[in-house]
This record gives sequence, structure tokens and C-alpha cells, in this order.
Amino acid sequence: MTTTTRQEYDLLGHRDVPADAYYGIQTLRAFENFTVSGVRLHQFSTFIRAFATVKKAAAIANNKVGVLNDTVKDAIVAACDDLIADKYHDQFIVDMFQGGAGTSTNMNVNEVVANRALEILGYEKGQYQHVHPNNHVNLSQSTNDAYPTALNVALDDYCTRLLDKMAVLHQSLINKSIEFADQLKMGRTHLQDAVPMTAGQEFNAFATMVKKEMARIESTRALFHEINMGGTAIGTGLNAPAGYSELCAETLQELTGRPYYIAEDLIEATQDTSAYVALSGNLRLFAARLSKIAHDLRLQSSGPRAGLAQYRLPEMQPGSSIMPGKVNPVIPEVVNQACFHVMGIDTAIVMASENAQLQLNVFEPVIAFNLFTGMSMMANICEIFATRCIDGVMMNNEACNTEVFNNIGLVTALNPHLGYESSTYVARKAQETGGRVYDIVLEENLMDKETLDNLLSPANMVYPKVKLTP
Amino acid sequence: MTTTTRQEYDLLGHRDVPADAYYGIQTLRAFENFTVSGVRLHQFSTFIRAFATVKKAAAIANNKVGVLNDTVKDAIVAACDDLIADKYHDQFIVDMFQGGAGTSTNMNVNEVVANRALEILGYEKGQYQHVHPNNHVNLSQSTNDAYPTALNVALDDYCTRLLDKMAVLHQSLINKSIEFADQLKMGRTHLQDAVPMTAGQEFNAFATMVKKEMARIESTRALFHEINMGGTAIGTGLNAPAGYSELCAETLQELTGRPYYIAEDLIEATQDTSAYVALSGNLRLFAARLSKIAHDLRLQSSGPRAGLAQYRLPEMQPGSSIMPGKVNPVIPEVVNQACFHVMGIDTAIVMASENAQLQLNVFEPVIAFNLFTGMSMMANICEIFATRCIDGVMMNNEACNTEVFNNIGLVTALNPHLGYESSTYVARKAQETGGRVYDIVLEENLMDKETLDNLLSPANMVYPKVKLTP
Amino acid sequence: MTTTTRQEYDLLGHRDVPADAYYGIQTLRAFENFTVSGVRLHQFSTFIRAFATVKKAAAIANNKVGVLNDTVKDAIVAACDDLIADKYHDQFIVDMFQGGAGTSTNMNVNEVVANRALEILGYEKGQYQHVHPNNHVNLSQSTNDAYPTALNVALDDYCTRLLDKMAVLHQSLINKSIEFADQLKMGRTHLQDAVPMTAGQEFNAFATMVKKEMARIESTRALFHEINMGGTAIGTGLNAPAGYSELCAETLQELTGRPYYIAEDLIEATQDTSAYVALSGNLRLFAARLSKIAHDLRLQSSGPRAGLAQYRLPEMQPGSSIMPGKVNPVIPEVVNQACFHVMGIDTAIVMASENAQLQLNVFEPVIAFNLFTGMSMMANICEIFATRCIDGVMMNNEACNTEVFNNIGLVTALNPHLGYESSTYVARKAQETGGRVYDIVLEENLMDKETLDNLLSPANMVYPKVKLTP
Amino acid sequence: MTTTTRQEYDLLGHRDVPADAYYGIQTLRAFENFTVSGVRLHQFSTFIRAFATVKKAAAIANNKVGVLNDTVKDAIVAACDDLIADKYHDQFIVDMFQGGAGTSTNMNVNEVVANRALEILGYEKGQYQHVHPNNHVNLSQSTNDAYPTALNVALDDYCTRLLDKMAVLHQSLINKSIEFADQLKMGRTHLQDAVPMTAGQEFNAFATMVKKEMARIESTRALFHEINMGGTAIGTGLNAPAGYSELCAETLQELTGRPYYIAEDLIEATQDTSAYVALSGNLRLFAARLSKIAHDLRLQSSGPRAGLAQYRLPEMQPGSSIMPGKVNPVIPEVVNQACFHVMGIDTAIVMASENAQLQLNVFEPVIAFNLFTGMSMMANICEIFATRCIDGVMMNNEACNTEVFNNIGLVTALNPHLGYESSTYVARKAQETGGRVYDIVLEENLMDKETLDNLLSPANMVYPKVKLTP
Repeated sequence: MTTTTRQEYDLLGHRDVPADAYYGIQTLRAFENFTVSGVRLHQFSTFIRAFATVKKAAAIANNKVGVLNDTVKDAIVAACDDLIADKYHDQFIVDMFQGGAGTSTNMNVNEVVANRALEILGYEKGQYQHVHPNNHVNLSQSTNDAYPTALNVALDDYCTRLLDKMAVLHQSLINKSIEFADQLKMGRTHLQDAVPMTAGQEFNAFATMVKKEMARIESTRALFHEINMGGTAIGTGLNAPAGYSELCAETLQELTGRPYYIAEDLIEATQDTSAYVALSGNLRLFAARLSKIAHDLRLQSSGPRAGLAQYRLPEMQPGSSIMPGKVNPVIPEVVNQACFHVMGIDTAIVMASENAQLQLNVFEPVIAFNLFTGMSMMANICEIFATRCIDGVMMNNEACNTEVFNNIGLVTALNPHLGYESSTYVARKAQETGGRVYDIVLEENLMDKETLDNLLSPANMVYPKVKLTP
Repeated sequence: MTTTTRQEYDLLGHRDVPADAYYGIQTLRAFENFTVSGVRLHQFSTFIRAFATVKKAAAIANNKVGVLNDTVKDAIVAACDDLIADKYHDQFIVDMFQGGAGTSTNMNVNEVVANRALEILGYEKGQYQHVHPNNHVNLSQSTNDAYPTALNVALDDYCTRLLDKMAVLHQSLINKSIEFADQLKMGRTHLQDAVPMTAGQEFNAFATMVKKEMARIESTRALFHEINMGGTAIGTGLNAPAGYSELCAETLQELTGRPYYIAEDLIEATQDTSAYVALSGNLRLFAARLSKIAHDLRLQSSGPRAGLAQYRLPEMQPGSSIMPGKVNPVIPEVVNQACFHVMGIDTAIVMASENAQLQLNVFEPVIAFNLFTGMSMMANICEIFATRCIDGVMMNNEACNTEVFNNIGLVTALNPHLGYESSTYVARKAQETGGRVYDIVLEENLMDKETLDNLLSPANMVYPKVKLTP
Repeated sequence: MTTTTRQEYDLLGHRDVPADAYYGIQTLRAFENFTVSGVRLHQFSTFIRAFATVKKAAAIANNKVGVLNDTVKDAIVAACDDLIADKYHDQFIVDMFQGGAGTSTNMNVNEVVANRALEILGYEKGQYQHVHPNNHVNLSQSTNDAYPTALNVALDDYCTRLLDKMAVLHQSLINKSIEFADQLKMGRTHLQDAVPMTAGQEFNAFATMVKKEMARIESTRALFHEINMGGTAIGTGLNAPAGYSELCAETLQELTGRPYYIAEDLIEATQDTSAYVALSGNLRLFAARLSKIAHDLRLQSSGPRAGLAQYRLPEMQPGSSIMPGKVNPVIPEVVNQACFHVMGIDTAIVMASENAQLQLNVFEPVIAFNLFTGMSMMANICEIFATRCIDGVMMNNEACNTEVFNNIGLVTALNPHLGYESSTYVARKAQETGGRVYDIVLEENLMDKETLDNLLSPANMVYPKVKLTP
Repeated sequence: MTTTTRQEYDLLGHRDVPADAYYGIQTLRAFENFTVSGVRLHQFSTFIRAFATVKKAAAIANNKVGVLNDTVKDAIVAACDDLIADKYHDQFIVDMFQGGAGTSTNMNVNEVVANRALEILGYEKGQYQHVHPNNHVNLSQSTNDAYPTALNVALDDYCTRLLDKMAVLHQSLINKSIEFADQLKMGRTHLQDAVPMTAGQEFNAFATMVKKEMARIESTRALFHEINMGGTAIGTGLNAPAGYSELCAETLQELTGRPYYIAEDLIEATQDTSAYVALSGNLRLFAARLSKIAHDLRLQSSGPRAGLAQYRLPEMQPGSSIMPGKVNPVIPEVVNQACFHVMGIDTAIVMASENAQLQLNVFEPVIAFNLFTGMSMMANICEIFATRCIDGVMMNNEACNTEVFNNIGLVTALNPHLGYESSTYVARKAQETGGRVYDIVLEENLMDKETLDNLLSPANMVYPKVKLTP
């Protein structure tokens, strides 16, 4: 911080601001008011870029409807482009946890853009008569339309990154499903031996899960294209010039290539956080499913000797500070934890959403914070799960084969031929004697060898084609 | 219960079953094992009807592929039709909380259908050699495909009822928005006076919320049309005859008029509960928004004298056992509570979903229980909210007008003309002196009367069309 | 229902009530208003008894301070005793989900007690001039003190039952820990083989968990002994005679044997639901831990052939409608589900608590409903887990011994003697060759046989006493 | 980072580590493996200090039982003291989200302490034959005892800070309760006018809430004094010398002044996270109550003209980017959001706890992260709530007086004298006519003026002493 300052004033009086700061008095007050999480706006560059894009679109729209002259418009646009190019992000010093429904974030943007625009135009910082944070940068806007619109733009970016990383994970799972396409293993229900399947089928099911959730996340993006620019304070559009709303949407479309459009009911849109809850709902659903995959891998790689030991995960680091040679499934474990976190913050998001009152939900900042961190964490997790775990999974083929051919669950395949009761008899006998189903069926003359061999062939068990007559 | 019994046996041995019971030994065991919630299957007739529909479809499909003869098929179909006609539901005695992934529910259905079918064919109950719960009623099925398919069919029915009741609520809100179309009131953000709006806009926004959530619930229904009949135990389809899967789906389509289809990846589908979590996610999102509406009505009908007293809710019952004449907003209050409940059980549903292991999620019963009760409660709540509250809401027109015309927030409309700083000056002066914005602007010669009258006219404030030049 | 009616009236006008009904007009209105869950007050007899006890105490206290004459007091007391003896519970027809902060429950009690008291005194039902629901039964009370006090008394009863069932479970676990005291098994961390332990130690740890949670539940009970009788509407005690509060507490002490006392800050106490959230917090903590025990048993009884197969759970019912001979861990599975449910409803309870406003939390009914069902479900689950699962657990001793003596994890015991790096070498070699640690150490001459035998003796491994010099 | 490196090796092979790094190969691997949240260990200096304290205690205990010589012990102690003095914290580079149950955190500590100790002894970094991360720093320890013990010590420190800040908040509330001791206001239930109270009573109730929660947090601290040092990997104490456990506890007592003791059942203690869930449960309970206080202040300071306008909060920053003069309750709003966050992460903590498996809960890192951030956030919030909001709250005395004396709720005070029905009549008449209760009672000759004046005197209403005869 500098010792040289400039003086600014607002509704509440005068304050000294560091002379070289691009932010202004309102940012300073917010910085002081919200010593809550220690996590600052500048840690979320995606959000800053998105907000700058919205400000840029608003300036262009304001210019087109004739309320902002070319000089000021051009300077604002240039300042926004600087932020989009990741410059001056260190000026975003407000805590992510803030009261005021994002007003402090909006004002931090307004002030930095105004001062950078002043600089571009050759003025001193703080000479707001030329470019004013409120009268020019925030022109025709309220925090209540600009902030959620910026949030929407940013979340779309977060979706892009998440979907990219989910695609990486999906491909890794598909690769493994091909690699293990022919390897038998026991399918299990209730953790009890059920009927045979291939490891390829298991990994393919994991891939299907990820694919389904990609589609669900993708479908959520559409929710972010409804924006409320021009709704201003409560959605009535007070102070927004005619035509401005639509121009904002069009300009945003051009700047981003995404189909933004103005909500039909701006009153509803202004107090609405349903798109965020919907995203969180889908994110935690993905988390629930990804956590399940991590659980399954940890479980089936348990061992090495007193576990299922069906899969072997790549070794990433020594597992124990006391047990020599131990290696733990650290990657799936951190996947689980990120998923628990995402499922937890969803509760916070729902609470914040439910507590909306009247014409606004003032709790959007905690929603934004948690969605940003959750989306980012899930993207990171997809990548390390794919590259540091899935890609290197190996199978214990021999053990898997043995566990299939010795399994009592094979009796299920005989059920349509022997009936439920005879089959049950065979199963109980195998259980009591420790014998194999195959041997018992032959010993008891329940079926001829050829039929039995055919029924118990791997191909028939994992992709069965039963032909029966009553 | 009768004292006469018949003996049945299963894997674990013999048991006496009441002679006149349509259920059998496995139902009896489950009844004894699961003394958990006291809430029994028979309290969920929608589910029983759905399960019977699935069993009927399976019997027809089995018959068409040639593994079930006409006599037995016809008897099973007739027995299912009895269940669909709400007969014999008292035979469904198992607790809704059950281990075994719904096997006990499936067996309760299988046994009741088998015994009713036996009766139809002129046999005694328990003569399972003619119609067997497993070999005939459950033919080509596993709990792991029949149970979730029945759940899907039932949830579709629950959606229908919920959407009907949401439509009732939506219409009530629309009616009020028309009734209050021209009544001004203050819009509020942060619970602080913001800018004017109409009460019609407020109710219209409520209606939009309900409409949006109807669309979201409706879109979730499509998820239930993917079914896994023929996947049997783990999705490999072991023991399901060729062609049976598709015939099941077709028959279900015919029986219900809904576009059921077989999942492409049956391994994934068999362990998948994502449709249920997605429904719960949307249900709790609706709950969050409905709760918000209830909060807003309670808040804006606070009073009668020391509150906002803007709306008056219909009086439904005396409000206090000690305070004479007190009437409370009991309907919105119960709406809030139902919504809290639905948001809470969502956590249980996510946990149950996340804890799936390997080829099955054995925790579907707690998911089913909570979705059924949650869906039902939200439907009930929509109806009583509409008919016992919204329809009778009245306004305190005079007070609303006064609070608008005396409000400092009107200064916002002058912002584009006076600039942020002069407007702030007016606002502060009004605040300090208790005066009206209108009077101060004229006193200070900031604007001529005509312009001011025009800017502050209700029509311009709530549907503003600003025309400005820079 | 009868066709004969009597007419009653209240603040909102006249209504016909069934002539033989003990409830009155306010109950009738509430019954009609709250068609929400279908779960009625009469399903919670513990709560009705508790409420009657509170009414009885209030009547006695009112009589002692001189505001209620002996005749009416005696009749009210006798009527309450009837409710305490489980009579007339069918008259409690209001839905558990209700607006009005429990006023409808309170009035249902007031009306039933008044009419039963009238009957006892020889009057007709509805002749409230003699015994009035509000003026006499509810004398010196408000819903806002009587309802939470009744809730407190009821929850104490629920705690008693839960603690009894937890004690049953604890004893079952202790019994098993003794039975398995000497049986070695592998201890596992990260699902990976760690170091040996005994099965007795494992079950003893389960028992310790239950014991710790019993203490925590027990400690929560003390919170329920703070009551707010005499606070009336908001805690200022308006209309409560001097001395009445203390007499209520004393009388409740005498009637229940529990140390009830009046809250110091009655304003705070009247809006306070922290005791309920604290109970829910401890209940869900118990649920989290019990769920963990259920998981561990399901996991370690996985198999029979392709699983850990270390424990064998008693067989409670056939496990599959399609797989003959399959038996599933249905009891632990239902334990898990009840636990998920309890962890879920905790979210609802917290939300209801957080949404308190000003001098009252009007959302207590949803808290009461969920605590009652959660407490009851956990008690039921403890009993069936103990009697239908734990008591019959058996061990696969041979497999457990083998998995210990072949395990690489034994190398940890050699760590202090060989150092972390040499031990790691042995572990890796065992892993690569499939050999035993014991053999490798001898082959490599890392230690003499006697020392090695001593280090790897079961007693030394599971209760080690290391003596080393640096 | 430097370009000069040293080579280290572990179980998985060799890696180059920056030559000047105090951390080693295992930290490096973990740093690379866990690119999850971007939040690093060094951001949690309380935790690093706590961990160093534990390592110091272990070294002293190891020395006392004779397994660690004085030279190495002294160097380790000195290195730990450096960390306790906040030196070298930049060496803690591992992500807070990590698999391996904290092994990476433990190894980061072990490596930094070892290298710093080496430096102190005059060796080069990496010359682990002299002071080894595992053989010396981690001697007699496992991650599974050292990590949770460090967590316990750290959480105790977090409790201290939280309690300090809660005390600040408590004092602010007490101050206001004294300042407003005589100011009447309406008490409200269901947001409807109830009976009068003083603002002092309201703030005193807030203070009582905070006080109660301070006691609850304080009581939770005791849970952290049970530690499992010496349990090593799974609680059997393998490799921990006799006497070491107790010496660890004693040394920790001396170093911290807190009554640490060794858990009786070390098997249970090693897999136990109940103390963390209990803390989280109490923290979110405090959050629920603090959020309620924030809601109440926001609500009762609503306005300035179309709200309750009973309290006036200090103005902290301009409230709107578009509405001139608007000031919002930004401090209570950020309090609410922090509270939602804490209630949300509690779900994550419960999930992580519930997912423990067998002898360990490997998900402790996500628990630690969320408790640290939640505790810290609540402490911060208490401070800013007190100093930036509560301390400056002012009352609108005149409006409060008016709303009391015009209120219909006053009729409650007449209830014991007029009876519920006559009182209801008065209330209804006041409601219909807009008149005052006082005037109507006199007009209708229901009571003489003296009695009425006495009954409605402020002192009698807010601290009533009713004396009645039946």
C-alpha cells in the first residue's frame, strides 16, 4: 500500500483511498466491512472477466440507445477489455462473503473500470466527473441485474471447464471398458455374490454415468441464458432506457457467442435464484455418482491380501508413515471428499435460496462462492481421477476368473431350467459343502453336461439369450 | 387375523401363514423383520397399483415370448387388475423401511398376485405348483428391475397429481395478479424500501415461479420412462428371454399411455438412482421457492397494527389460546413447514443414493418412502395454499398508496435526470427532515413540476419508458 | 361419525361439531385446514400423555395460586388422567403438520379435556360455561409455553425408550466382543490391509461407540428440564399469576419424577428451539456412527465366495426373487436407511429452527414430528439390529487366521527393529513374489527366528509391549 | 522455486526436490497429486502450530521412554519450536483436500521438521540418516494418531478464538439490553402483534442465546482432550513403546495447559470422528440462532418508511448502485450468509463421518478443512456483527410507543378479567372500527378506568404480577 492517498466521498462521507488504487471509496468500505472468509474476489478471475463482459455490453447498449457518448463508452470498453485480459485483478479486494447482494462486487467493478477508463482518457484517478462509477459505468444498471447476469456468464464458463474435464474422465473410463471388455468378474448386489459380468461392463457403466451427468450439466447451462439486464432495481426497469434490455442481450450474445435473452417476467427474474439451485442440484447429483464410482474402486482394490483385490490402482505415493510398503487409494479418497463437500455446500445454497425475501435474494454472494468453488473442485477432481487413477487401473485376472467359476451365484443361470426350488437346493448344498455348483448339478443328475456347459459359458452368462418354452 | 393357518416354506424353512392371507411366507418374514417405521406398504396405493401394472406387463410379455402359458398369464393379469382396482391392498403389510432393496415389497406383490391368481383358477391359496410367486409371477424378473420400474410408474402418477395441484395454485396466483393489477405498493430489496411496483406484478411473479417449477417437474418425468425390465439381477439380463425386455416396455406403454423404453446400458440403469435424486432436487427447489412465497405473504400481512399490513390473509381459525382476537397466517406457516420437510428429506435421498455399492443401490426403499411422502405433501400443500389462502387474499389499498407516495425510494426515478449525487442529496434530506421527495425537489428547484409529475406518475414508475439524451 | 351434532362458536363464527365428539370447533377447523401429511396426533400417544400431564400440572398450579376452584380443577385432573391412561386418543384428529405453532394441538387437548371434564361433572359436552377450553383448561397458559413444555416431557420419554434400546444393542455388542475376544483378524485402514487385531476388539469398539452416544443422548435430556410455563404468549408472563410458574415446575416434578425448572430468561426460552436441534444433532451423530457399524458388518460379511467373508450374519429371509440361495444383509441395510433418514430430517429441523422470527418459532410442529419419528425409528432399529443381527453373527475363523498370517502388513511390527526402509524392502518383495513376510525376513537374514517369532506372536501384535533402546 | 535440486527416494522411487526446500519427496508427490481446492496447509497456521506441538510432545515422550536420543530429540524440539513460532509455514504446500487420511499433512510436517532439525544439527537437508522423517520425527506414531491429535489441539485453539469473539458479541448485546431497558415495543408471534415487551428484553434474549451457545461450544472442547497418541495404525498400539502413550499426554498437558488424556478404547478412538461432528453440530446450532438474530434485526429495521422501522442499524456503506440514499443492512446479511455456509458444511462433515470404514476414517481432511473455515468464519462474524452493527443500533422510540398503545394485542391483559369471549369481542370491534382497545372497553362499560389504567400500565404489561380470585 502507498502512503499517498486521494480523497473520495460517498453517501456516508469522505475517505482517503490509496492514490494508485483503481478501486474507490465504496470498495474500501466493503473491504473493511467484510472480514469474513479471507477469500477475495481476485481469486475468481473467471467471475471478474464475466463481470467486465457484462459492463462492456451495458456500455455498448447504453451508447446505442443514446445515453452514453462515444468517448466514455470507448474508454469503458477498453477498461473492461483490460479486465477480460486478466489485468488489474489485484484491485478486487472485497471478500467473497459480503452483505448487500453483491453491491460491493458491482461497485468494485464499477470503480476499477471507471478509474482505468479515466486513466485511458488521460485523467487522474478519482476525477469521476468524466467517468463516474455509478453515472457511467453502472448506467441503466442495478446490482440486481448486473450481478446475476455476470454470475450467469461466469457459471457458463465454469460449466465449459467442468464439461471438458468430465469428458476427459469419460474417455478414460471408456478406454478401460474396452481394455477389460472380456475379463469376467462377479457382479455383486448387497455386497453379496450375484451373477457374472465383465469388468468392461462395469467400467462402461461408470462411463455411462458420467455421460448422463454431462448431459444434465449441459442442459442446466440453458438456464443461465435467461438474464434480467434492464430490470434494474426490482425488475420494473425503472431508469433503463427503452430498447436497452434487448441491446444488452444482443451485445452479450456477440461478445460471448451464447444465446442470452431477456427474461419475460423481470420481476420474477430479479428475485430468482432457481438456476443456481438447479445447477447445484445437478452438481451434487454428479458428486453423488462420482463418489459411488470412487467407493467401488476403493472397495474392489481392497487388499492386497485380505481384500477383494480385483483391481489394482496405480501407486501415487507411500500410504503410511508407519506401515512400510503400504499404498492407499489416495486419489479415489480425495474424490470422495470433494464430493462430500459439494453435497454439503448444496445445503448452504438451498438455504440461501429459500431465504429470499420480497423483490430480491440478497444472499447471492454465498451462492456464488459455493458454486464457483464446487464447480472448480469437481473439474479438478475429474482430471486427477482420470489421469492419476483410472488410466492406470489394472486387473487381477486370475483371481477374478476363479471367483466367477467357483461361485454359487452361477446357479441363477440354471433357475429357468431347474426352477427356483431345485436351484435353491443346489445353492444350499454348495454353501454347506464348499463344493461347486457345476459339480453338484452333475452329481445330482439334474442336467446333462452339454446343457450345463452351455448355460455356464461366459458369453451366455454375461450376454444371455434365453430360449425357453413353458 | 385367523387362527387357521397354512404351512409354507422357503430357503430358511417352514412357517405357518394365516390361511386366509393372500401374502405368503416371505411377506411374513419381512413383516417380522422390519418393525421400523410403522408405515406400511398399503398406505401407498399408488405404488401398489404401479407394481401390479408392472407385473401385468411382465406376464403379458412372458406369454408373448412363449415362457408363460395362457391360463397362468390370464390369472396373473386378472389378479393384477384386482390390485389396480384397489382390492386386497390390506395384504401389503411390510414396513416401507426395509432391507433387501425392495425384495420384500416385490415378494409381497408376487405372493398376493400368486394367491389371488390361484383363487381365480379355483385352487387353494399356497398351491404354488400352479401359480408360483417366483417361477410365474416373478418370471424373467428380479427385484432389481421390477422394483425400480414400479417406482418409476408410481412416481409418474405422483407427478401427475402434483402438477394438477400446482396448476390450481398457479391459477389462484394469476387470478390475484389480475385482481391487483393496478394497485401500487412499494417494492423492497434488503427489506428496505426500493421502488414502486404493483401488487399484480408481485403475484404474477409468484405465478411465474410456480409455472417454471411445473415445467421443471414435468421435464423430470421423462427420466422415469427409461426402465430396466429384462436387466434382471445386475443388468446382464441373465434369465430374461430374448425379446422380453422390449415387449415389457411396449406393454407398459399400452397399459399406461406413457413412452417407456429400455435403457441402453442396463448395467448402469440397474444401479442408477439418478432420476430419483433429480426429482428430489427439483421438488426441493420448488419447495424452496414456495417457501419463499409463503414467507413473503406472512411478512406482508404482518400486523394488524405493528406490521406491514399490506395484505390481509383469509382467517382460517382462531390464532391463539390466550390472545383474544388474534388470527395467525396458519396456512402459509404449514406451507413453510412442509417445504422444510421436503428440503430435509432431500438430504436423506442424496445420502441413500451416494451409498450405492457395486451393481445395485440397496437403499431404494428409503428413497421411495421419502419421494412418495414428499410429492404427496407438496401436492396437498399447493391445494390448501391456493384454496385456503391465496384465493382470499385482500389488500390494504390505502396504506399501500400512502407508503408509495411518501417513499424516499421515489428518488431513484430522478437519478437519470439529477445524477446519483444530487439524488443522494435529496434522499438524505428527506430522511433527515421526514419530508417527501416530491416537495424537496420542488423546494430546491431541481426540476420543474411538470417533469416531476410525469416522472413520478405510477404508470411511468412501474412500467417505465425512459427517453434520455446524454 | 354421527349425524347428530352440537353447535359451537368461536372468533370466526358457528360450526356444527359431532355431538359425541370430545373435540370442539377449533379442532374441527384445524382438521379441515391441515390436510397435509395424513399423519394425525393420535398416532403419537407419548405426546398426548405428555400434554395431558402438563395440563394437569397447570390445573393444580392454578388451583394452588387460587385462580381455579377445586371442582373444576378436580375434573380437569381426572380428564387428564384419562388421557394419560391412553383413553380418548382417537379424539386427536389434527394433522401433525400444522400452522399456528401448535395452537391446534393445544386446542385439541384443551377441548378434549374440557368436554371430558364436563362429562365427569355431569354436564353435556359443549357446556363450556362450566369448564371452558380456554378459560379453564388453558388458564394461565399460552400455546407458546404449554406446547413446548409438553414437547419437552414427551421427548424425555422418547429418550428413555431410545436409551433402553441402545442398551440392548450395547449388550449384544459386548457379548460378541467377549465371544470373539481371541479371534485374530486383519485390521484395515483405507480398506487396505494394515495390522492384526482381534474381532473382539472390533466389536468392543462398536460397543464403545454406542456407549459414548448413550452418554451424549442422556446429557441432552437435561436440556428438556428447562421449561417456560408461565411465560405465556411471549415470555413476559402476561396473565400468569404470581407464583404459578414455580408451582407448575414443582407439580411437573412430582408427576414425572424429573427435575423440571423454569427458564431464567423466559423471553429467550419462548422462542428457543435449541434443545430440539441439539437432540437432533446428537441423534444424527448416533445415526452416523450406527450406519458405520452397519456398513462394516455388511462389508465384512460380503461373499460368500467373492467377498471378505470374515463374518457371517444370521439369515433372516431369502434374499432374491431370482437368485436361488442368495441371502442378503437385510437388517444392516434397513439400519443404514433409518440412519440416512435421521440424518436427512435433521436438515429439516435445522431449517425450521433457523427460520424462527421475533418472539416465537412457529415451526415447532415439523420439528416435533421429525424428532418423534426419528427417535422412535432409531429405538426400533437398535432393537432389531441387536436381536435379528448382532446376536447371531458368526466368524469364519480359519479364513481370518490365514489372512493374518499371510499378510504383508505384519511387516509393520518389524519396523522399529529393521527401520522404515528395510521394512519397506521386505514389504515390496512380498508383494512382488507373493511370498510371506516371515519367510522373506529369514531368507534375507534380517533377523533371527526367535526374535521374529516373538514379534509376530498374536499377543504381541494385538497388545504390543515394545521395549527398545535407540 | 530453485533450479538446484537434491534427490530423495521413497517406496515408489527417486525424485528431485528443490535443494532449499524443507519439505521432501512425499510432500512433493502429495503436492502434485492433490490439485483440488488450491487451498494449502500454510493458510492454516493454527493447525501447523498444533501439529508441531504434537510432534514435540512425541519426541519428548520417545526420549523419556528411551527410544530417541537426546541429540535428535533436542533438534526435533527446536525445529518444532520454529514452526510454533510461525517460521517455515511456507513449506506447507499440500492442498487441504487430500486423500490418505492426512498422511500427506503428517509427512509434510515430518519432512519439514526433519530437515530443519538436520539444519540445526549442522547437516545438509536430506541427510535423513541423522534425522529421519519416519524413523525419528514420526517415531512411535502413525498418521492415524498424530493427525487427529493435532486436529484436536488446533480445534481447541479455534474454540478459544471463537469464544473470545462470542464474548464480544455477548457484551454488545448486553449493553444494548441495558440501553433499551425501558423502551416498550410490540412483541410479535407469527409476525402478528402479540403483547408488549421492552426492547431491552429482546436484546437480553439475544444475549442469552449467545451465552447458552458459548456454554455449548465450551462443553464441546472437553471432547478434544481425549487423544489416541500411541494407538499408532489402528489403535492396537503396535510399535509404540510401553509408557509412551501416557508420556505423550502428560507432555501435551505441560505444553498446552490442557487436560489431555489417552482414550480408554484406542481402537474406537482411532476411527472416531464424533468429537468433530459434535463440534460441527454445535457450531451450526449457534449459526442457526445467530442467523435468527440477524433476521430479526433486518426485519425490525426494515423501512425507512414502508417497513417496521423500529430499529435503525448503523450505516456501513451505500446500499445501492442505482438507488440514491439507500442503505442496506449489509452486516446482518453477511452474518446470515456465513451461517448458511456453516449449516451447509455440516452436511459435508456428517457425510464424511458416516462414510468411515473399518479401523479408520480416511475422510478427516475434509472435516478438518470445513471445521477450520467454519470456526474461523463464525469468529469473524461475531466480531463484525458486534462492532459494525449491534453497537450502533438505535431505536425509533416514538413509533414503538405508538404501536404499543394503539395495539389490539393489549386486550390480552384483560383476558383474565373479561374472559376469553368478551375479550375477543373487544378485539374484533377494535379491528373493525380501527379504534383503540382502551376506548372500547370504557365505551362498553366493561371495566372501570382505574382498573384499566392499572392493567395497561407498561410495568404491569411487561413484568406482570397478576392477582386474581376465581
